[in-house]
Parts: sequence; C-alpha cells; structure tokens
Amino acid sequence: MVVVVKKNPDKTQFNNLQNWLKSLGVSIHTSEGENSIVLGLVGDTTSVDIDLIRSLEIVEDVKRIQEPYKNANRKFHPKDSVITVENVHFGNGTFNIIAGPCSVESEEQVISIAEQVKKSGATMLRGGAFKPRTSPYAFQGLGASGIEYLLKAKEATGLPIVSEIMEFSQLPLFDDVDLIQVGARNMQNFELLKELGRIKKPILLKRGLANTIQELLMSVEYIMAGGNENVILCERGIRTFENATRNTLDISIIPVLKKQTHLPIVIDPSHACGISYFVKPLAMAATAAGADGLMIEVHNDPQHALCDGAQSLTPQVFDEVAKSCFAIRPLACKY
Amino acid sequence: MVVVVKKNPDKTQFNNLQNWLKSLGVSIHTSEGENSIVLGLVGDTTSVDIDLIRSLEIVEDVKRIQEPYKNANRKFHPKDSVITVENVHFGNGTFNIIAGPCSVESEEQVISIAEQVKKSGATMLRGGAFKPRTSPYAFQGLGASGIEYLLKAKEATGLPIVSEIMEFSQLPLFDDVDLIQVGARNMQNFELLKELGRIKKPILLKRGLANTIQELLMSVEYIMAGGNENVILCERGIRTFENATRNTLDISIIPVLKKQTHLPIVIDPSHACGISYFVKPLAMAATAAGADGLMIEVHNDPQHALCDGAQSLTPQVFDEVAKSCFAIRPLACKY
Amino acid sequence: MVVVVKKNPDKTQFNNLQNWLKSLGVSIHTSEGENSIVLGLVGDTTSVDIDLIRSLEIVEDVKRIQEPYKNANRKFHPKDSVITVENVHFGNGTFNIIAGPCSVESEEQVISIAEQVKKSGATMLRGGAFKPRTSPYAFQGLGASGIEYLLKAKEATGLPIVSEIMEFSQLPLFDDVDLIQVGARNMQNFELLKELGRIKKPILLKRGLANTIQELLMSVEYIMAGGNENVILCERGIRTFENATRNTLDISIIPVLKKQTHLPIVIDPSHACGISYFVKPLAMAATAAGADGLMIEVHNDPQHALCDGAQSLTPQVFDEVAKSCFAIRPLACKY
Amino acid sequence: MVVVVKKNPDKTQFNNLQNWLKSLGVSIHTSEGENSIVLGLVGDTTSVDIDLIRSLEIVEDVKRIQEPYKNANRKFHPKDSVITVENVHFGNGTFNIIAGPCSVESEEQVISIAEQVKKSGATMLRGGAFKPRTSPYAFQGLGASGIEYLLKAKEATGLPIVSEIMEFSQLPLFDDVDLIQVGARNMQNFELLKELGRIKKPILLKRGLANTIQELLMSVEYIMAGGNENVILCERGIRTFENATRNTLDISIIPVLKKQTHLPIVIDPSHACGISYFVKPLAMAATAAGADGLMIEVHNDPQHALCDGAQSLTPQVFDEVAKSCFAIRPLACKY
Repeated sequence: MVVVVKKNPDKTQFNNLQNWLKSLGVSIHTSEGENSIVLGLVGDTTSVDIDLIRSLEIVEDVKRIQEPYKNANRKFHPKDSVITVENVHFGNGTFNIIAGPCSVESEEQVISIAEQVKKSGATMLRGGAFKPRTSPYAFQGLGASGIEYLLKAKEATGLPIVSEIMEFSQLPLFDDVDLIQVGARNMQNFELLKELGRIKKPILLKRGLANTIQELLMSVEYIMAGGNENVILCERGIRTFENATRNTLDISIIPVLKKQTHLPIVIDPSHACGISYFVKPLAMAATAAGADGLMIEVHNDPQHALCDGAQSLTPQVFDEVAKSCFAIRPLACKY
Repeated sequence: MVVVVKKNPDKTQFNNLQNWLKSLGVSIHTSEGENSIVLGLVGDTTSVDIDLIRSLEIVEDVKRIQEPYKNANRKFHPKDSVITVENVHFGNGTFNIIAGPCSVESEEQVISIAEQVKKSGATMLRGGAFKPRTSPYAFQGLGASGIEYLLKAKEATGLPIVSEIMEFSQLPLFDDVDLIQVGARNMQNFELLKELGRIKKPILLKRGLANTIQELLMSVEYIMAGGNENVILCERGIRTFENATRNTLDISIIPVLKKQTHLPIVIDPSHACGISYFVKPLAMAATAAGADGLMIEVHNDPQHALCDGAQSLTPQVFDEVAKSCFAIRPLACKY
Repeated sequence: MVVVVKKNPDKTQFNNLQNWLKSLGVSIHTSEGENSIVLGLVGDTTSVDIDLIRSLEIVEDVKRIQEPYKNANRKFHPKDSVITVENVHFGNGTFNIIAGPCSVESEEQVISIAEQVKKSGATMLRGGAFKPRTSPYAFQGLGASGIEYLLKAKEATGLPIVSEIMEFSQLPLFDDVDLIQVGARNMQNFELLKELGRIKKPILLKRGLANTIQELLMSVEYIMAGGNENVILCERGIRTFENATRNTLDISIIPVLKKQTHLPIVIDPSHACGISYFVKPLAMAATAAGADGLMIEVHNDPQHALCDGAQSLTPQVFDEVAKSCFAIRPLACKY
Repeated sequence: MVVVVKKNPDKTQFNNLQNWLKSLGVSIHTSEGENSIVLGLVGDTTSVDIDLIRSLEIVEDVKRIQEPYKNANRKFHPKDSVITVENVHFGNGTFNIIAGPCSVESEEQVISIAEQVKKSGATMLRGGAFKPRTSPYAFQGLGASGIEYLLKAKEATGLPIVSEIMEFSQLPLFDDVDLIQVGARNMQNFELLKELGRIKKPILLKRGLANTIQELLMSVEYIMAGGNENVILCERGIRTFENATRNTLDISIIPVLKKQTHLPIVIDPSHACGISYFVKPLAMAATAAGADGLMIEVHNDPQHALCDGAQSLTPQVFDEVAKSCFAIRPLACKY
C-alpha cells in the first residue's frame, strides 16, 4: 500500500499516522517528492482500511498494491485448481456444459429435460427449487419438492445436480445436491457465505449484477477462509446502461480471472442476455475465450415455463448450441 | 401491457398467444397498424412474464404500462403514509436526522455519541452490530453485545434505535430494536423480506447499489404483501463509472419516489460519498430536495473507527451539518 | 407509439393532445382500461417527441413501438449489405482482420508493420494520423504526414487503409484514404456525420463509450439519410463500473446488430480491454460470435509506442492471434 | 507515480524499464517488499503513459499519484477564479441563474421568454441555435438566425447570452455571443477545444454523459493550455442503469470540483432529469450544495416546443423555482 501525504504535513498528525500504521504491523518506507511525501507500506495490509487513511486531513491519496484476497490468488497458487463434483471435473483443461430448466416444475418435466440434455452432451443438470424473483407475485419455486424431483432426475440419468440456495436454513435440504449455487443477489450475503465455508461441498458462486471482479474474489475469500476450497465462479451478466439485452455479458472476465485466480470459471449466457436467440452466439464466444464451462437454461416448452421462459432454449436448439460449442472447444484460447 | 406482433404472423402461433393471454385472465384489444398488430392487454397483468412474451417468434416487442407494484403505489394510496418509530414520525411533512456510529464498538462509545448527536438535534440513534464487510478479514461487528449497547444508549438518551439485520435467524435479537434496517446488499434477499413482512416492526429498506427505483419498490412489495406496511425507504448511492466518490448519490430519487409512492424517503449521504468532507453538501442537498430524513454516520474518533471511519463525522462537525440542514428544512421542496 | 392517459383526464387537455397528435399525421386507436386510457398511434412516428408527450399532466407513460431508424433497419432491408473497401468486402459471410499501429510514427514503422500483418492474413491496414487523447500533453498524431506514410504503406503492400477523421475540415486529407473512421468520442458529432453522409466513401463508425446500440443506429441514420449507405459498425467497449479492464467489451452487440440491421459489424478488442494479453481471447470470442471482422492494434515495439502501447500486440503475437481466429472462423455462429 | 514490479524480475527487462523511465526525465526511488519491488517515480509524470507501463510483463501494477491536470488544479491556484461574462460574475460567492428555451424558435418567442426570466431574476439568457439531436429527423435548430434572435433579446433585456457551438467552423457566428457552450457530446471533441483555447471568450464546458470528473478537468486543460482561462464547468447528468430519469444528476460533483479546481460550477437540472416536474427539487438541491449557478430550460409553451419540451418549465413555474433557489442560496454550503 502506498500513502501519499501532503507536502509539509502537520507534524503531530504525521507522527500519529506513522505510529498507527506501525501498530497495524506494517513497516514504512518514506520517499520525499517535490509536492508530496510517499509512504510505502510493507507487510500484510489486507486488514488496513484504505478509505479511513484516505479521509485523514494530511493524506492526499492511498493506493492498494497487493490484492486483498489470498486463498483465491493465483500468485500464491499458480496451478489451476480442479473442482470435482461427483464424477465431473472443472478446471485445468476440462470443459462441461450444465443444462436444465430455470425452475423445476414437475418430476416428469425435469427427468425429460435431463435425458435430453444428457444426449446432447451436458454433464450436469441444473434446476431451481427456490427462486429469487423480483416480484412477490411471481412463481417462487417448488421448494423441497423441487430438490426431490432433481434427485429423481439424477437417479434416472446419472447427471450430478446443481441448485440455488437462498439462505442457510435451507442447507439440510441440500444434503444430496452435488453443487450448491449462490445466486447473483446473494453474492454479498456474507452470513450465507460464511456458513458455506464450513461445509466441504462444492459451491458455484455467481457474480452480482453490479459487483466488480475483485469483489467476487473477496466473496470467494469468505468461503475459502472458512476452509471450503471448492469454489467455481460464474459470470451471468452485469448491469449497464444498455437495454437491448437484459444484462451485459462481461466476456473479459474470462482472461481477467485466468490471470488472477486458480479457480474455474463458468459462463451463463442465458441470464446474461435474457433472450433465447442470443444464447447461442454468447455460448460460442465464451467457449472460444476459454471458459471452463457453460450453464444454459433448457425447457421443453419455454412458452409455458413458470419463470424466465424468455431465455430458455428448447432441447432441439440446445442440442445445436452444444454441438457448436463442442466443435469450437478444441480451438479455444488456452492460458 | 401492450404486445406488438409482427405483420402477418403465423396463425397457429398467434391463436396460441391470444388463448394463453386470455387464460391468464386479461382481455385483449387488437389494433392493426401498417407494420405490426398491437394487442392492448387490459386487466391485472402484474403476474404476466414480459420477457417470456418478448421471446416468442411472432412478437416484436412488449411494453408494460401499469407499474408492477400495488401496495406501495401512490396511485392507490394518494396520501403520504406516516411511519411511526416509537415517538418519532416519518412522512407527511416531518423531518428527522438519524445519527450514530457505523459500528457499535463499546457501551461508552455509543452512549457518548448518542448524547452528543441528541444535543445536535438527532431524533434517532443508528449503530451497526452485524456488519456486512467486503473482506472476511475486516471487523464483522460485535453482534448481540452491539445490540445490547445500543439499548443502553437508548435508555440513557431516550433515542429510539435502528440497526441492520443480516439474516432472519438474528430476528430474536432485534426484539427491542425500534427500526430494523435491511442493507443495500440484502435489498433482494427475498427470504429475509418475506420474514420481515410477517412482523409489524418498522423496516428501513436501503436501495441496492445497482438496483433501479422500480426494483426497490418491488422489494417493498415483498414486505407489504406479507402484511407489514411500515416501510421507510433509504437511498445510499448507486454504482456508476465515476470514482471520485465511493458511490453516486442519486438525488433524483426524492422527487421520483414522491411521485410513485406514499412511503417516506431517507437519504444516507455518508455511504453515498464515502468521504467525510463531502457529507455536508450532500446532506444539505437532500434536505433542500425534500427528503423526509437523513441518516448520518458520526464517530467520536473517526481515525480509530473499526469500520468506515473515512465517512464518519466528528460530533462537532455533525453539529454543524445538522444546524445547516435544520436551517434549510423550512425552505425545502414540498410535494 | 402507445400513449397511456390517466383515468378521467381533463377534457380540454385530452382534446388538445388528440388534436395535436393528429396534426402530426398519425391516426389514433383508443382503448379504455380500468385505470387508464390507451392511445395506439398508427403511422410514421419517427418525428414525434416521446419525452414531450410524457411530460403532459394527463399522460402516465408513452412507449415507442417502432424503431426510430429506417435506413439501417433490417426490417426494411432483410439481406446483409456488403460494404466494399477497394478489393475488400465486409458483410454477407466475409471475414477480415484490420491491423496496424495505434499511431503512425514514421514511414518505416508503418510499412514494416503493414508487411508483417499482411503476412499474417490481415487484409486492411489501420493507423492513426490524428489522435484523440484525453490529455493535451499527450502525443496528438503526425497529422497530414501520418496519412502520407499510410499511403506509402498501401503502395508497398496493396492493403487498403483506414484512419480516423477528427473533424470535417480534415476531409480533403482523406481523399485517398479507403475507409474513414469516426471514433467513439465523435459518434454523436452530428455535423461531422452529416458531412460524411454527403460523400460516397465507406465509413467505419465506432460506438461511443456510453451509447446504446439504438443510438449507434441513429448515428448511422445521419450518414445514410444524407445518401451514403456505406457504413461499417464497430464495437470497442463501453464504460461500466468494472475497472479490471479499461472498458467492457459488449460482445452481445453482435447478435443484437445482426437482428436489427443489415450492416456489417467489426469488433475492436484492443481498445475494449486496453491490455495486450487480453486481446487474444476477446478476438477469438468475437470471431466465434460471428463478427464480420476484427480491428487489432499491432506495434513493432509496444514498449516505445507513442500511444496506447499497452494494448498493442507485437507482430509475432498478432500472427498467433490471427491464426487462432482464422481457425475458429469456419465454425463461427451464422445468422 | 508508483510502479509495482514482480518479485525477481527478468534483469534485462528491469534495466530497460528503469532506463526508459529515466529517459522520460523522472527519478526513481526503489523499495523492496516481500512479494514485489515498488518504484516511486518523482518528477513530472503527466506525460508518462500509465497503461503502457502496466502492460509490461514484469510489472504488476501502476498507480498515478499526482493529478494529470495543472491549470485547473486548485493545488496550484488555491483561490476561486471569477469568470466574467459581460456584467455577470461566476465564482467566489456569486450565484446566477441562466434560463431560456432549449431551442430558439422565433424572435418573438425568445424576447418574450427573456423578459419573463429576467423578471424572475435570471441574469443570463440561454437558447440553442445549433441543436445536437440523436435523430437526423428531429429539428436541428435555426442556425445563424437563432443567434440573431438571441442578440435581439439581449438588446431588449440586457441579458448576456449563451449558446452551443457544434464545430469550430461556426465560430464567426459566435462573435457576439457572450458565453460559448460546448455540449456534453463534444466534451472530448479535442479539435474544437483546442480552437476555443485560442480565443479569450468565456467557455461553458458541459460534462459528457459517461465522462469522469477527472476527464472533464482534462478537457478544461485543453482549453486552458491554449491560453484561455475563462472556463465555467457544467454538470447535466450522467448515464447509469436507472431509467426513471433521463440521466442521473451527479450532485456530488459540486464538492468534488470545489476541492479539485478553482473554476466555477453550474448545474443544469433540466437535462439531468428530462422531466419538467423534477426540475425544481434538483435545482434546490444544487443550490443548497453550493453550486455557483443554475441553467434551466424555460419555454412559453412547452407542449409545442420544437425540442425537449418535456424538460422545460413555463415562465410561471420557473418564477417559483427561481424564488425557491434564491431563498435557499444564503444558507447554501460554503467552501
């Protein structure tokens, strides 16, 4: 961390600052410039409050130099992590497509979709049992029965399952769920993240609509600091001023995360664009850019889907999308 | 809701669409234009999935005409609601300043600050016991003892208290808290909102960093639909590309909400800018624009505050800010 | 266009509105709902000011149904346009890479780079002679000599050239430039667009940092309405809250534009990310998503480039990027 | 500027970097940390390309410490500048309201509005002769006659006038215009800024829709570096994801600019919100926060205004807004 102090600072305040910094366990290298004094802080600065220092009267600016995350940092863990979900591996050159309905609606529905997406090459089944909906008047999910139907579909097809948890009192219901999803709106639900750090089950953490990549990695840190190192990251679009798509897929997150972390990254083009006929090109783009996997919504009858039908593909269209992505995968960007 | 159908649509698909819309209980007015057919949907369309219709092949576009929220809608409730927190009233021409430390740190600290802000005219005390922090390595709050110290400060000063809940298992600890705050990161924690809809205690709901005003009102709807009509709204800055301030205070939310809802609106300039010497002009601006109240962070020793010291005022500076706002208040915009 | 009028509007105001709308040449279909009256406007509404109607006291809301652009609209021109720049064709299944330095620095530099990128498969040469720089203290380009050196490089290699115009008094200098670029900061420099509509030379129009896709198409309309139909669109990143990359590449623009317009779309990954080692994955993603071309910065010595060296590739790295994109192209998304 | 180099860098590359930095005229202070080497650059770094350094293989990060603008910097010019437009002074405790129609439509219109706003206390007249419109099919302004009518209104009322220039070939027409406005879309039209730096007439520079405050100050630098120090800054809303208002008024720009520059700041609430009944609270907020002036659109018949009628006030409503702002002004925040 670098602290820029104004030229000729009040002496008492300057001493106070230096003593306080030392009390935090960091050592200080001072270099005096023409218009300011620059303090280089050496040591572990992860717990120093950068905004607090910035607010001091004698301070002009503060810059963080080390990333404030450790466990997820590729610098301290140069090799790709491989996250294993049952028989499916994410990271280190693997590529998987997770597919399934936005919401679980019935046992028949989810088994039928699972069978079809498996034929098309999907290796995991997704399905929402608890649904975060903007409106209280919209369908909120089947809850416990939704999980039950997903497990039936797993039994029928062998596909491991992923479903979203909305708060940790639901955790017992997720005992047999293979991968627990934390949705975008819960990316900074820190109490939930802490609880998920105490279990060993793999977590799929989605980026929030207005969160930076660094904040995503800080939320990972909540889980990993608790002892659970099995985290897969997921980009599902960020909020911008553009309104031709529901959100804006930040495709650059793929190379940025490949540089900053050893954890695998999955792209969800369905939520990113919100419109089914944009899913294919985005899925292909993410594959080419080197994503470790995709998560795509598939529904047998999107027109009657209870939620987000707009962004769901029919199994026939999904088959075509999957084929196109598998074709591109061998040519994808490597890191 | 208005559905724009392409010229010469496939007949079967067009019939399907019309039948399906009728099955949702809405009636349809058709008018044929030169390049498209326009369907006007009349009736309760709050549960119609606009994105789903948009995704149909024969549909060009869909536009919502009625706001999707009811209970908070001024159209159905033209008079200002007054939300009462102990002896303090929000709405309908009242004006209150809530003040206190970002985090409760000790009994002495919070009592001392409470006494000072009361002298300056604050009518409620704020203080965080559970703190949502981006980093797991940052101070997370005192928890139950934090609430206890706040109650001591209430006893000492008579000021009702507000504190943030982070998940509903904490609810029993909030039994004696007068106003329960839902933070920006939890604005769409729908499980929490539903639970808070089942109690009668007033709720202070903060807008999320990347949420639209309409989404804020939809979150209110979760609480009100459950039966709890005591909601106060709070703006604390949104995320934009500008980085000279931590967030961007959306001052326009005041007139927008005054038009759309009957609920009171409080502005939090401290979190909006993140820097103490910007708090005063923002507080004055919010007062002039007709906010029903302010929420301001005050700390006896910002340099040693355990969190967000950067945006906290000393009691002396707060006194000056409060004076300036009380002076402006009689001249403030009326609605 | 659909105008939603409040229930029981003031009669005089309602009559005024209807008469005024009719005076604009549109006819009105009225349908009365429970809480409002909906007016469907039929006819050419491109010149109706939607914001003005919205501001009337008796009006609740207004929604535009037809896109406000005509010449660029795929609805009225279903087939892909092919824009021809010398011997190079953009659109309708073609794929071209434009490459070259951010700034032209010398005759030798630009000829040497041109020869190298041609070997790697680039079919056009880019190079800035007039440079829009945020700081007045930064290098502003060689001006007329820059154009001259580009023409020398064209002579040497046969590659047609593209360069950015900054205002229309420079137009005579662009007589021999094959494709005139309008930069992001000038996307809404309407005087310049009008002038470019009066010539026949092809134009490469870059999207502004904070412009919607619809605004980009409206700016195209300025050029096409003047009689120049030779426009190629270019995405180069938009501004968001994310700061790990200089801008955020909006990859979804490819399918959105393919649906809305018949004009070709080129992606510039260099400006989008601003960092050379992110260019490759973004170029590959854009290719997979079906872009009609790429524009990539290449410099023989990025470390000493006079501008934007950070995002330039060496010719060796460019060769690798081009190979990867050409490999993916046959598998790219088709529309 | 601080450059963070990776631990154990390649020696040749490290030497090259240091030699190159020295060749730019800056001296280097080195301090070695546990995980990296920190180079503190001392001297004038305004022309060092931060992105270029960031792209080097051995570099982890670079942080700028000095602001890259000089002439506008309050650090080197602590007292408020006063910009004089005829008999009107901006800055150093003065407060002025500029009012008038969005577009000049006729001599009678503009004289009548001028007389009315003068009565209400406006000290300058605004009016558009050249109009930047998103659509080429919208009214583009009266051009030279527009300027002529403004001058007639000045003759009739004594109010100095401000009007927008769209490109510098129009400059001769602005000979008698007292204050030349550069619109938001031209904030980075650097050729225009350079030309305006060569004249002595005061300039009103509006912030672009997606420009940071620092970029606004860099654009000022273009004008001031040319020798014209008469610049007034204007905030008119930035683009965000919120759509209840046309743009989002960044009210925080007032304290931020007061800290960073000595130039006066004017707020334009009309363009910021785009809806007439939101103008009053925003104007009052800006006044309270200490703006040096306001710019407000007034039209005698907003319903028939040729452009932006939605955001124009009638003279009667303007009178009320002006009264409210003048009442607040003595209580406004001081810096």
